[in-house]
Amino acid sequence: MSGFGEFEFIADLLAPLAGDTAFNLTDDAALLPRLGHGEAWTVTKDAMVEGVHFLPDDPADLIARKLLRVNLSDLAAMGARPAGYMLSLSLDRTKGRDWLASFCAGLAEDQRTFVISLFGGDTTSTPGPASFSLTAFGAVRRGAELRRNGAQPGDRVFVSGTLGDAALGLRVLQQQAVVSDQDADYLGGRYRLPQPRVALGQALVGRASACLDVSDGLLADLGHIAKHSAVGIEIDLAAVPVSDATRRLIGADPDLAHIALNGGDDYELAFTLPAGAGLPEAAVQVTQIGRVIDGAGVKVMRDGQPVTVNRPGWRHF
Amino acid sequence: MSGFGEFEFIADLLAPLAGDTAFNLTDDAALLPRLGHGEAWTVTKDAMVEGVHFLPDDPADLIARKLLRVNLSDLAAMGARPAGYMLSLSLDRTKGRDWLASFCAGLAEDQRTFVISLFGGDTTSTPGPASFSLTAFGAVRRGAELRRNGAQPGDRVFVSGTLGDAALGLRVLQQQAVVSDQDADYLGGRYRLPQPRVALGQALVGRASACLDVSDGLLADLGHIAKHSAVGIEIDLAAVPVSDATRRLIGADPDLAHIALNGGDDYELAFTLPAGAGLPEAAVQVTQIGRVIDGAGVKVMRDGQPVTVNRPGWRHF
Repeated sequence: MSGFGEFEFIADLLAPLAGDTAFNLTDDAALLPRLGHGEAWTVTKDAMVEGVHFLPDDPADLIARKLLRVNLSDLAAMGARPAGYMLSLSLDRTKGRDWLASFCAGLAEDQRTFVISLFGGDTTSTPGPASFSLTAFGAVRRGAELRRNGAQPGDRVFVSGTLGDAALGLRVLQQQAVVSDQDADYLGGRYRLPQPRVALGQALVGRASACLDVSDGLLADLGHIAKHSAVGIEIDLAAVPVSDATRRLIGADPDLAHIALNGGDDYELAFTLPAGAGLPEAAVQVTQIGRVIDGAGVKVMRDGQPVTVNRPGWRHF
Repeated sequence: MSGFGEFEFIADLLAPLAGDTAFNLTDDAALLPRLGHGEAWTVTKDAMVEGVHFLPDDPADLIARKLLRVNLSDLAAMGARPAGYMLSLSLDRTKGRDWLASFCAGLAEDQRTFVISLFGGDTTSTPGPASFSLTAFGAVRRGAELRRNGAQPGDRVFVSGTLGDAALGLRVLQQQAVVSDQDADYLGGRYRLPQPRVALGQALVGRASACLDVSDGLLADLGHIAKHSAVGIEIDLAAVPVSDATRRLIGADPDLAHIALNGGDDYELAFTLPAGAGLPEAAVQVTQIGRVIDGAGVKVMRDGQPVTVNRPGWRHF
């Protein structure tokens, strides 16, 4: 960090983000705030590496917000109410005061949106590439947290929002796909700024039998529910929700049709509801895409017939 | 990770490290275990980058244990009882199954030593240097946590163990200093494997008026106590505890004399005790090195006269 030291960074940019129990980031560790009666802390930790999880020329404020939001998406998948986060920054020499100020402005904006605060963390240097790790803290009623292992044959399978947008957005940003400016803005935005479904996740507590966030691709992630619930899942290809922009891009290049199933980076919730359970009111579109059956694995059906989908889901390495 | 995938790594090597509320690492997030009545969670997060915080040829098990221990040292400084941790690994291509198995064996060994377990985390790839981030969780009686801001004029200043060993150990490992094989083993070990003073930290709860761990160098860290407590601190150079190995090395090269004051990476506890408070029983040596006075900043005294010490404390960037 040229001309801008660790202590100045903490005092000027990070301390204003800190919550009451973070001691203004002056101590070795922070205390977590008190929970309500019967609540438990839910914690998750995801890292992002420059060039792997975001592009070197992505705006700093969007990088910060994506880092926060991918973690909030994990909390949403557990049905937790977000409360705060800790942050580790490994910064290369290109990250000066302006970059860091933009990064922290992004954090501040999303702190307001999600009503959370910074609990602590640390900053260090790296010869490169920059990497960031965030630990997010949420509160959930103990024993009521949403898990992956509760799906039962007969349950219906749902997904929030639309799928494939973020994966196509990355291709557009990397100029591997050509779309209208308007579609490019929409798809690029879906890649750069996930919308963690924290309200939906909390509303699913006491209703959903299994839930997770779709980050590796729908088929891979439903595979986790199938495996840990020891069930099969059958989805109807025609029901998988895609945006108009994604539909246009797939129309122009049918090779991209798999992307709603395998694209990754969607950060939508996929969940199962028992037969008797109703859908909660939600601000986001929720679509039934299939059902839980006896058996194992995830089957994709088109017109009542199983189809084979190539390309496995994204793995992080 | 050549020939060894993320899911195999989690199932084979990480899941055996996980505690009861980590759901075997199969879900999006973990729950923190229940606390005792009146306890609060203390959390800290420190990252390490290859080539910055450890050497590329350091043994993997020692890298893991150092990563864990520098975080446990922060918990010790708050007086907390360690409970568990979350882990983010950004791995470059050189880290195969053997390396990871050794890394996890190091974690397992220290989990037994400190009676803690893995709560969760994530693994990702990086083109370049490997980096690791760990979030450590400890329990402390709410309101009794050790802070940096409670020192008062008249308090005595103490430090645990000996200072300068780790910084000299790094020089020895980098072949910038020549010592006997026995001293090289001792000093290198002090660099590679910190000894977090978790028992001492807990014993200081209710006694110490301020406490932190010495990671940036004694003078820099005492400066934090002085600043946040709004006091001055005076230390007696002759009282600063050094090991025999460090004494021999300083004897051979007086230019290294500053290293006990500014070396960094000591992971000893520095704390202040009010006049009436007794030292707790401790397995580690504890030495009085000075006292808290009216004023500001840290003064180093030799034979009753202030001396100037060059070289500021280590900054992380």
